[in-house]
Amino acid sequence: MSDTKYTIGIDFGTESGRAVLVRVSDGAEIATSVYLYRDGVIDETLPGTDMQLPPDFALQNPADYIEVLRIAVPALLTESGVDPADVIGLGTDFTACTMMPIDAGGTPLCMKEEWRGNPYAWVKIWKHHAAQREANRLNEIARQRGEPWLTRYGGKISSEWLFPKIWETLSQAPEIYRRADRFIEGADWIVLRLTGREKRNSCTAGYKAIWSKREGYPDDDFFAALDPRLRHVVDEKLSRDIYALGERAGGLTEEMAGLTGLLPGTAVPVGNVDAHVSVPAATVTEPGRMVIIMGTSNCHMVLGGEERMVEGMCGVVEDGIIPGYFGFEAGQSCVGDHFAWFVDNCVPAEYGREAQVGGLSLHQLLEEKAAQQRPGEHGLLALDWWNGNRSVLVDVDLTGLLVGATLATEPEDIYRALIEATAYGTRVIVEAFERSGVAVREIVACGGLPERNKLLMQIYADVTGREIKVARTAQAGSVGSAMFAAVAAGAQAGGYETIFEAARHMAGLQDIVYRPIPAHKVVYDQLFAEYLKLHDYFGRGANDVMKVLKRVKAQVRG
Amino acid sequence: MSDTKYTIGIDFGTESGRAVLVRVSDGAEIATSVYLYRDGVIDETLPGTDMQLPPDFALQNPADYIEVLRIAVPALLTESGVDPADVIGLGTDFTACTMMPIDAGGTPLCMKEEWRGNPYAWVKIWKHHAAQREANRLNEIARQRGEPWLTRYGGKISSEWLFPKIWETLSQAPEIYRRADRFIEGADWIVLRLTGREKRNSCTAGYKAIWSKREGYPDDDFFAALDPRLRHVVDEKLSRDIYALGERAGGLTEEMAGLTGLLPGTAVPVGNVDAHVSVPAATVTEPGRMVIIMGTSNCHMVLGGEERMVEGMCGVVEDGIIPGYFGFEAGQSCVGDHFAWFVDNCVPAEYGREAQVGGLSLHQLLEEKAAQQRPGEHGLLALDWWNGNRSVLVDVDLTGLLVGATLATEPEDIYRALIEATAYGTRVIVEAFERSGVAVREIVACGGLPERNKLLMQIYADVTGREIKVARTAQAGSVGSAMFAAVAAGAQAGGYETIFEAARHMAGLQDIVYRPIPAHKVVYDQLFAEYLKLHDYFGRGANDVMKVLKRVKAQVRG
Repeated sequence: MSDTKYTIGIDFGTESGRAVLVRVSDGAEIATSVYLYRDGVIDETLPGTDMQLPPDFALQNPADYIEVLRIAVPALLTESGVDPADVIGLGTDFTACTMMPIDAGGTPLCMKEEWRGNPYAWVKIWKHHAAQREANRLNEIARQRGEPWLTRYGGKISSEWLFPKIWETLSQAPEIYRRADRFIEGADWIVLRLTGREKRNSCTAGYKAIWSKREGYPDDDFFAALDPRLRHVVDEKLSRDIYALGERAGGLTEEMAGLTGLLPGTAVPVGNVDAHVSVPAATVTEPGRMVIIMGTSNCHMVLGGEERMVEGMCGVVEDGIIPGYFGFEAGQSCVGDHFAWFVDNCVPAEYGREAQVGGLSLHQLLEEKAAQQRPGEHGLLALDWWNGNRSVLVDVDLTGLLVGATLATEPEDIYRALIEATAYGTRVIVEAFERSGVAVREIVACGGLPERNKLLMQIYADVTGREIKVARTAQAGSVGSAMFAAVAAGAQAGGYETIFEAARHMAGLQDIVYRPIPAHKVVYDQLFAEYLKLHDYFGRGANDVMKVLKRVKAQVRG
Repeated sequence: MSDTKYTIGIDFGTESGRAVLVRVSDGAEIATSVYLYRDGVIDETLPGTDMQLPPDFALQNPADYIEVLRIAVPALLTESGVDPADVIGLGTDFTACTMMPIDAGGTPLCMKEEWRGNPYAWVKIWKHHAAQREANRLNEIARQRGEPWLTRYGGKISSEWLFPKIWETLSQAPEIYRRADRFIEGADWIVLRLTGREKRNSCTAGYKAIWSKREGYPDDDFFAALDPRLRHVVDEKLSRDIYALGERAGGLTEEMAGLTGLLPGTAVPVGNVDAHVSVPAATVTEPGRMVIIMGTSNCHMVLGGEERMVEGMCGVVEDGIIPGYFGFEAGQSCVGDHFAWFVDNCVPAEYGREAQVGGLSLHQLLEEKAAQQRPGEHGLLALDWWNGNRSVLVDVDLTGLLVGATLATEPEDIYRALIEATAYGTRVIVEAFERSGVAVREIVACGGLPERNKLLMQIYADVTGREIKVARTAQAGSVGSAMFAAVAAGAQAGGYETIFEAARHMAGLQDIVYRPIPAHKVVYDQLFAEYLKLHDYFGRGANDVMKVLKRVKAQVRG
């Protein structure tokens, strides 16, 4: 045991769990260990069977989460040589809504012999999309009833969230619903396993389960209007005890200490969500500075002192990101995915050869070529809706559009136009926040894209007219979890009293700052005006061609 | 000399001249010979110099035309063994407006030592695009003056046509204008060389030089309003003597007989245009049946008994296609060019490998994949304006649009959507004709695409709701010219008295008929309604984003 203290953060992601050992004094990342889930995302057949899953299913095996604890955590200690006695906390974050049915003892039903052949007994992860029918019906009923909470979620509950997923299970597998003692988020289940205590967190409850600190859940009549059997869903299958982020859930159990190599009683904070936990890791613990996690999709988070209704955001939750503030979240459903689609489907062989000769990836080659252009030079404009629009239109049935193509249009032109389109989409979100009184004075980026694509970062600065900084850590999720672990441990144990203090010491920014270039901004302002016109025309009902095309496609495919 | 008579047709194209020897009795194509122009399209430096041409220039060397006569025609006789005495006529057609300045003796100025270094002394071919400024100004002045002839050309004179090209020469090279005894179409110049007689044809005069049988040319005041020096341009530099198609221009001169190996006095009809001469070769000599020449672009021609004003057509000319009828012409500026652009710029390497394994071209592979889809299945819709819109919007500044893209969109989806977009564009044209009282009951296709792409043909039938037949000949231009040669020779010489008679004997259709499939038509009717909405929204001024993008691009490029 030494004077130097450490915490561990674990980010339970879509394909793997990532654990990092962090020095409490300055946030230095001492060791990292990644465990790739053996069963990964289960979307074809259930493990150990040849049972074909229905379309739109995306499941996980909770045994994989335990493997992360058993393999990745000890690896950190081995790699770093740190004394477990100096590890004062273990924090976790999860994808969400990633939910499962458990029995009274906390065991997921899919881990019990009798239910393992039933897909509804498994963990439905965030991108499980089979509850769209339930989500549509839920939204319709909520609108009819004038449910006041609907505006907190931009007017629409996503099919990815908790109640549509529970209702889907009730409809499709009522025996699972009946046998489930509770439904629980992965974020809360892992804490339950680590500490033996069920302490549900305010982030998943607020963003995914229509809970608010002041109003609680929707009332029982609303659930009864969905299905009479759901009237008491909250009391029967969930919990009304919700804990703010940073609170200590408990200490590591003997069993879990044995599994991980840490000491029993090591502090564990309540669960958290991968995106939200990244905010303090990006140095943001106050209003005015938006964090954007840029990867396959973009997630935008900003804090405010008051509850405001912002068009089409994913949610506003008190204590949802940083205790004491309202956390606002918005999103773009397709960012890196756009570019990946383009590279996979639209780049000619000749570019592959050129990239090979230059020792570049296709992405790098396209970025290099696109970076040689001035804004507006390619004459293109796109709507970044290849995967629908999350904010501010909240409409999964919108689709991508490209305008301005000529016989001289080249692949790098389209590539750049797609990057710009996502930047315009971000500007729409930023302006919606500001219009509603939620300030966005600067942007801090984290995630995979900022490291990989400098052109994209400059375009975002030019388009939004805001400085963009970049979080120091490349693994903001697990570092954020390690920071909350330090708060759960408390100052006396060598941690911190608050997340503000933890952020001051443990989080940092890179030296690089992307500043808007005035000459670029002038052009992008012109183009953004055109983007907005198209955005509103196709996105707000004046021309519903995107939906007609989807409808025709569905009809034709029968 | 035998009882079997023949005629020769020569199609003077963009890159080559194509001569065909045809049996008069049944149109059988006995021999074909192609001469590739030595100087091709001159768009970088003038032949024999390193003088760089200005942008948008596209020239030809008239010496290449003479080479076609000197090499390709004798080759036909050699190949076929036909006695020149049995060749009763030689007909020609040309690209248009393909024009040049000549001296009083008919020699192009570029063939004279003192002018060969001046680009304006050469042949400006149809796709010479450097007279846009003059065309814009001409249209503006015509509109201001309320010139009645403007409506015959869909409200706009193209920069590709005769007067903008002459005016450009006057502005940029007044010495050439001054020294030109006349300006003449290639179509008329080749006839002048063959027969020694200048007999300008009604097709180029009508479609390219604002001439009409009843009204003649625009009056001198109009030309003076463009530039006082142009007041007498018609009388000083052109001719008011215009001859209907099929008329005998004269007989082959001794000199040309020597050059070609044919007999002096062999009948030569007045000149014609490649597209228009194809109409009787596609069996069409009466109203109600539209001919579409499908290649890099589409050209639509149909006959009518009366003059009608049809929105956005390229022109209506009495005797312009078949004597005694009004010939209507419309066009799409980008058809095969679309698909070529797509294949060059947007198809991933993996498809190249798959095509290679299957022994297919990329076009064939994409067609094969796209043909497996049902209409509407890809969920996409495109506006076919990668190269502007010729009919019915007559706007070169419109650009391409694609809507409906998702992360599941594949290359063959876009390929099929582009084919469909050109079919919708054709349907817009067909419906504009019918709305104005010009019937289009069936379609006859010729050109390169019908042979190569059966999927495209079926889609055109499904989208337009009309049967599509295919001309028997794959070289409709030269066969059409051979038919007019038979008419110029006359019945007594073994030819025909009229083009109607010639078509009855010499033209034919293939056995294949593409019939609209009712189930497809239902879906395409839905999609066409969406196409029309986008067509009108972006094409008629409600949203001028395409022009804004072009303007910004021009500004940025300085």
